[in-house]
Amino acid sequence: MSKQWILKNRPEGMPKDTDFELREVELEELQQGEVKIKNRYISVDPYMRPKMSVLEGSYTEAYAINAVIDGLAIGKVVESRSEAFEKGDVVVNYSGWVTEAVVSEDSLTKVDLNGLTEAQYLSVLGMTGATAYFGLLHVAAARPGETVFVSAAAGAVGSTVVQIAKALGMTVIGSAGGAEKVKFVKSLGADQVLDYKAEEDVLTQLKRLAPAGIDVYFDNVGTDHLDAAFGHAKINARFAICGMISGYNKAAALELKNFTQIIAKRIRVTGFLYRDFKDDLPEFHAQMSLWLKKGLVKDKYTEVAGIDNVIEAFKGLFTGDNTGKMLVRL
Amino acid sequence: MSKQWILKNRPEGMPKDTDFELREVELEELQQGEVKIKNRYISVDPYMRPKMSVLEGSYTEAYAINAVIDGLAIGKVVESRSEAFEKGDVVVNYSGWVTEAVVSEDSLTKVDLNGLTEAQYLSVLGMTGATAYFGLLHVAAARPGETVFVSAAAGAVGSTVVQIAKALGMTVIGSAGGAEKVKFVKSLGADQVLDYKAEEDVLTQLKRLAPAGIDVYFDNVGTDHLDAAFGHAKINARFAICGMISGYNKAAALELKNFTQIIAKRIRVTGFLYRDFKDDLPEFHAQMSLWLKKGLVKDKYTEVAGIDNVIEAFKGLFTGDNTGKMLVRL
Repeated sequence: MSKQWILKNRPEGMPKDTDFELREVELEELQQGEVKIKNRYISVDPYMRPKMSVLEGSYTEAYAINAVIDGLAIGKVVESRSEAFEKGDVVVNYSGWVTEAVVSEDSLTKVDLNGLTEAQYLSVLGMTGATAYFGLLHVAAARPGETVFVSAAAGAVGSTVVQIAKALGMTVIGSAGGAEKVKFVKSLGADQVLDYKAEEDVLTQLKRLAPAGIDVYFDNVGTDHLDAAFGHAKINARFAICGMISGYNKAAALELKNFTQIIAKRIRVTGFLYRDFKDDLPEFHAQMSLWLKKGLVKDKYTEVAGIDNVIEAFKGLFTGDNTGKMLVRL
Repeated sequence: MSKQWILKNRPEGMPKDTDFELREVELEELQQGEVKIKNRYISVDPYMRPKMSVLEGSYTEAYAINAVIDGLAIGKVVESRSEAFEKGDVVVNYSGWVTEAVVSEDSLTKVDLNGLTEAQYLSVLGMTGATAYFGLLHVAAARPGETVFVSAAAGAVGSTVVQIAKALGMTVIGSAGGAEKVKFVKSLGADQVLDYKAEEDVLTQLKRLAPAGIDVYFDNVGTDHLDAAFGHAKINARFAICGMISGYNKAAALELKNFTQIIAKRIRVTGFLYRDFKDDLPEFHAQMSLWLKKGLVKDKYTEVAGIDNVIEAFKGLFTGDNTGKMLVRL
């Protein structure tokens, strides 16, 4: 039997428990080329929120109503009718919010743990880490010695950006909400951390903490952080636009007071998606494995236990419950 | 005697006649290395408006109160104490809104008209043309076969962008205000022209006129045009942000409803200034001279006569009085 979370209703604004339903189902018999997997960790990610709505111009297909919410997971092969996989193999898969699944061999990536952990493969060595790596180094082309501003620096991607930037000799200004998260981001090595929940606005804090301006902005939130980055950029600054978690649950227009600085400072602003860099994954994997083994980057994640608590974990992404990547351990 | 426009007050919003004063002054005797020039054409440009205010983070120094408003002009040398220039030489200079001036030889560029005209050197072969050329081809990296959207397409830079894009085999959607300007932009060769003063909003018109989306947006205005470009961009679209004439006289925040498309469509948005491309001017000059001689690009300008009418010409930039470059002939 597999326990599976399905989408029951398209959420309006913040998702509610009643938008989802946990079902118990008997899995089908394996066909040739299929394997049965038992998941060990499930990933819950902000990008899943827009997929729960039907949005014009969205970059991914919406989840279907009454279908399983798919996404990255890591587990073990428990039964195989594939020549490529055998029982006991550890596989990154796309089965999503389920305890067990029968999947095609084509959808799996075998992982040789080799001193690394399953949780790492679903966080800092996975999509989260790769998003941080490619956004910072390929999209924004950040270089050693530059000053990097990172929003949602206590979050999954942001906390990895902070650590990569420090591993490469950059000066890092992180932004996080509340004293506990500020402390966490400092523990990652950030040179300065601003508290966006403080009375002083983001731009004022940024000017104080990085008096000479910023070379790079890694954007995870949009809104006042993006506006502050425009307002305090150096000439030829580069912004990588990764996500706008603050906008995922509402439809308000983005208001930018400082956008005209894009001309004065010749700023380059680029949106990107992880999937555009699939060809470069070996580069990322080689570098990140080394950093992990040498301790220059640490896996930082918040673990929630049990399939029953997936929705709590997911909702927590939007209320700031996680430091680092949010994972559900089964 | 030289007639010279000076800045009397910093304008609030739209400039008024009382913000300026026309003075008549006796010019100084020439020192070694100086020449006296008599201007033939004076340039009035949108970028001059922000220079009349003292703005935080501006990319150019503000004009001083009671000083001459400098800027590009073209004229003839009437007296010389320079070994590099002699009487009768045609020179592009930076003396600005004046009939005559004594200037250093270092500030002059001698021009060999060679079948081209003075007005061309101050428009399509000058800063205006170079801004269009570098913005479209270097910043936005527009390529033959692509679809280019240009705002303020009846304006100085916009009308040149339209013609360059057509000379290179691109599909061009221009935006202009009112039937007369729409007709003008069509006469430049634009494939489609939208009227931003029409009842239908810019995004709706853009979707109708370029059903498959746009590869490139050349932005001269900001506001609803920029938002429409975000709302209808193809994957990997590039936006060159050249100017925001609509924002120069007011301080409202930019509101973008469609900015999140920067991620979905992996849009690259880059601000630029003409002066960053000075090293590439020979490339521009060679190409543009050829286009002019072959008739692929035509000089389009609105001419106003007489030093007395400089302020009218300048104010006209913000009320849409010009098609093509606005020049004052002396």
